[in-house]
Amino acid sequence: MRAKRTAALVGLDPRFDQLPAEIRRRAAERTSRSSDVWARAYEEFCCRIIDIVAPLVPAVKPQAAFFEECGPAGMTALGRVIRHARDRGLIVIADAKRGDIGSTAVGYARAWLAGDDTDAAPWGADALTVNPYLGADTLRPFADLARERGAGIYVLVRTSNPGARDYQDRRTADEPLYRAVARTVEALAAETRGEGRYGCVGAVVGATWPAELTELRQALPSAPLLIPGYGSQGGAAADVLPGLDADGLGALVNSSRGIIFAWERPELRDQFGPDRWEDAVLAATHEMARELPVSG
Amino acid sequence: MRAKRTAALVGLDPRFDQLPAEIRRRAAERTSRSSDVWARAYEEFCCRIIDIVAPLVPAVKPQAAFFEECGPAGMTALGRVIRHARDRGLIVIADAKRGDIGSTAVGYARAWLAGDDTDAAPWGADALTVNPYLGADTLRPFADLARERGAGIYVLVRTSNPGARDYQDRRTADEPLYRAVARTVEALAAETRGEGRYGCVGAVVGATWPAELTELRQALPSAPLLIPGYGSQGGAAADVLPGLDADGLGALVNSSRGIIFAWERPELRDQFGPDRWEDAVLAATHEMARELPVSG
Repeated sequence: MRAKRTAALVGLDPRFDQLPAEIRRRAAERTSRSSDVWARAYEEFCCRIIDIVAPLVPAVKPQAAFFEECGPAGMTALGRVIRHARDRGLIVIADAKRGDIGSTAVGYARAWLAGDDTDAAPWGADALTVNPYLGADTLRPFADLARERGAGIYVLVRTSNPGARDYQDRRTADEPLYRAVARTVEALAAETRGEGRYGCVGAVVGATWPAELTELRQALPSAPLLIPGYGSQGGAAADVLPGLDADGLGALVNSSRGIIFAWERPELRDQFGPDRWEDAVLAATHEMARELPVSG
Repeated sequence: MRAKRTAALVGLDPRFDQLPAEIRRRAAERTSRSSDVWARAYEEFCCRIIDIVAPLVPAVKPQAAFFEECGPAGMTALGRVIRHARDRGLIVIADAKRGDIGSTAVGYARAWLAGDDTDAAPWGADALTVNPYLGADTLRPFADLARERGAGIYVLVRTSNPGARDYQDRRTADEPLYRAVARTVEALAAETRGEGRYGCVGAVVGATWPAELTELRQALPSAPLLIPGYGSQGGAAADVLPGLDADGLGALVNSSRGIIFAWERPELRDQFGPDRWEDAVLAATHEMARELPVSG
């Protein structure tokens, strides 16, 4: 974040119907099964997005679900996308929202968390999003392997969707449930912080709920935040600034569709059009980076 | 369950170090990269387990984490294991504990849920385990696709691990959180029930908590239960019977290590030994099926 001077994070959420026509066509020429076509198109599209945004942002966040929908070929493509991003010097946060009990959690952690040695895991990401519903004991194996490998996790604390109210906001004796999850996250983050300001266990807190974001930034002094919901989900720059610390550090702010499908945005469509989609992606990334400056 | 006359479900949780030596050896002869060796060994082992248990039980539950740990080759092996089980007439519950917000949840649902047409999804399972922490709106896409394709989901309600107490048991105004999740599950189950006794949305309720199991069987009259924790996690047949309805239907009771690594159990080790591991698996499956009889 210091090197790129921004908290902007680009989410890689490919959707086949929205890809540039040239990429859909080229993928279809090479293979037959539709899931293989999708996988190839996602790989080419994401790698080209990575080439555009790598000089401007510190990190990307591929969404595993879209690759998984393409079957094993999609998961192979996801591995290549992660490697390409890391080769370009980007931090990669795999948004796979995994979680399971003890010995099984170890399997997921080993699948995704690599730290500096990309080859240490099949999908060698720097960080993984993790679902806490099963309990604090199920976060421990992820935190332990993250620390061991110099990687990290982001625990879902307060998500960006309307349904975040359904369970995360349920009031326990004296607080909503998400605060109990946040306390676990802060404890694990403080424990893994070492000499740095932030530990290797962070929290996902949606940009669409500014009051909770402000509260959680204060309640989680050791935890890096991952803030989804900026842009197409309705969160604006002013909404997410409370999630950053005084230096503009301590949180990555994600935009997926607003960047990767930037040429479909009304204000950019006329200027660029579908043939100049890469220019639209570049312009949108520049704009987002400017809105989220790092001063520290 | 009526055809096999038992609620026994076999969990496929392969761990490389515990596989029969012959399988580990054969896998290593064929390939070089260790994740490929593991994937091949898991596939052979699980398919042979399936051949043994298929005449005795209605369903198997492969654990996705162990296959994911092997990378794309592991996920390819998992697809083959699922297909093999379905070819043998078994119901397949993919234990992948997926969950995400709206449009992303659709990706996961399409990856896993196939219903009668195995080819409808890359990992064409009959059912998928789903994590509810993100909210009720994130369960809807899974429930809708399950109904459309004649498949099903099991929502994590009260898990079998000690950490189930951390968040699932947090008391909201007048009830623990898991009861709020259970109400969402029952509503979706009732909505998808049609003429049958149970809908296509079920609940995961651990065998290690008999009181909660009894309560949830009553609170969820339309939801099929998936009960983990029997056997090696400490749950006994008497503990899980309250999860079944009067006919012995309405729930599948899972045993993983107690079946697939049966020859390591003290009482079976002397009788069979490692060379006759398949006989030990058969004996353990017979025993479990007898303990969980279906009368309806």
